[in-house]
Amino acid sequence: MESTQLLDLLGNENRRNIIQLLASRPYYVSEIAERLGVGPKAILGHLEQLEQTGLIRAKTNKQRRKYYHITENLKLEVFVSPYSYTMETCTVLQQPQSEKPKSPHRGPTDDSKSIETLKKLNTELFELESRRRQLADQQHKIEGEMTDVMAECVKWIHEVVENYPEEEILMTVLKKPQDMRSLSMSMGLPEYFMEEPIRSLMDRGIINERQINNRQLLTLI
Amino acid sequence: MESTQLLDLLGNENRRNIIQLLASRPYYVSEIAERLGVGPKAILGHLEQLEQTGLIRAKTNKQRRKYYHITENLKLEVFVSPYSYTMETCTVLQQPQSEKPKSPHRGPTDDSKSIETLKKLNTELFELESRRRQLADQQHKIEGEMTDVMAECVKWIHEVVENYPEEEILMTVLKKPQDMRSLSMSMGLPEYFMEEPIRSLMDRGIINERQINNRQLLTLI
Repeated sequence: MESTQLLDLLGNENRRNIIQLLASRPYYVSEIAERLGVGPKAILGHLEQLEQTGLIRAKTNKQRRKYYHITENLKLEVFVSPYSYTMETCTVLQQPQSEKPKSPHRGPTDDSKSIETLKKLNTELFELESRRRQLADQQHKIEGEMTDVMAECVKWIHEVVENYPEEEILMTVLKKPQDMRSLSMSMGLPEYFMEEPIRSLMDRGIINERQINNRQLLTLI
Repeated sequence: MESTQLLDLLGNENRRNIIQLLASRPYYVSEIAERLGVGPKAILGHLEQLEQTGLIRAKTNKQRRKYYHITENLKLEVFVSPYSYTMETCTVLQQPQSEKPKSPHRGPTDDSKSIETLKKLNTELFELESRRRQLADQQHKIEGEMTDVMAECVKWIHEVVENYPEEEILMTVLKKPQDMRSLSMSMGLPEYFMEEPIRSLMDRGIINERQINNRQLLTLI
């Protein structure tokens, strides 16, 4: 799923609340409506929107009741700073089924054994969460350093550019090598607007075109 | 900023496009309107919303033109899976000013020196980005493992619970120890609804209350 699509979905409080409910177990429409205190028609509209993107799916049970459940396993990351705005959505992959530890056998229930297993899984979950948090902290530290470097870049960019278009092009290229099309997309300007400032930056030996992975990309010289 | 507040802001395409523009340099209203092909009145409305949350701020220059710029340095992470829905926004901290490398001195411009510095900063930026990506990949792997463990938990929870409320309570407590209030918030149900299933889960020796950091929290036994 595209990040913008996911942000459109998550931009509505009712849809966020629906996702929150479905993250604990499958629900049917009137159950959600009652729980959230929102009319079933409105809930159905949100469910349809969520279903269209593939984030949730419906399954009808034996009593012909339509239950909705979350099908995706997504991580969305948005980073906003004075110098950058990036977003990224990726699918978090689970292990293939065969490698998974074995599930409860369908025999007579032995509660004490189930509870013991749950306890073990619970400990495992906490350990994973603490490792996840460590990595997140390290990542945030690096993101802070990146903002520092970008702040520094902006100062030096001001020393070499002659106008706003040059400043924007240089900042964009600095964050990531670009071809004309991606540059135009990222700046929201048609390509012909950028030809003149790009030529000028090239003539002054600030940027150039380079072959990277079979693409002609603009980079710092 | 609250994650929900940030998601409300990012749920609109025009506001996302405004943030995208401001992430390259400060802009004034009519410039943004022209660039995005949206009426200045609508743009102003979005800018006011963005300003209210503190994400952007306006500064009037000598020509009395009001320029908007991003003031925050935020990272938003949202994770959606069949078993969990979490979101978190944190402020990415920059280094204190004094530790920063020195900026260009305000003397006669020496382009070649500026370009050389930019080149160095650019390399630094790419190295940071590649380390950031490595950490992100490791984190996604752990998030996948967490989903696996939660899927496994769900199966075992089904073995011990007797109804939906018990299932939801157990799943919530398993993800994180809870007091009555946080449990009620996270499940969107009043506390008195949960008293009976909690008592039943306690009586059957599945959950209990424990003192953690001076708070009485429900955890797995």
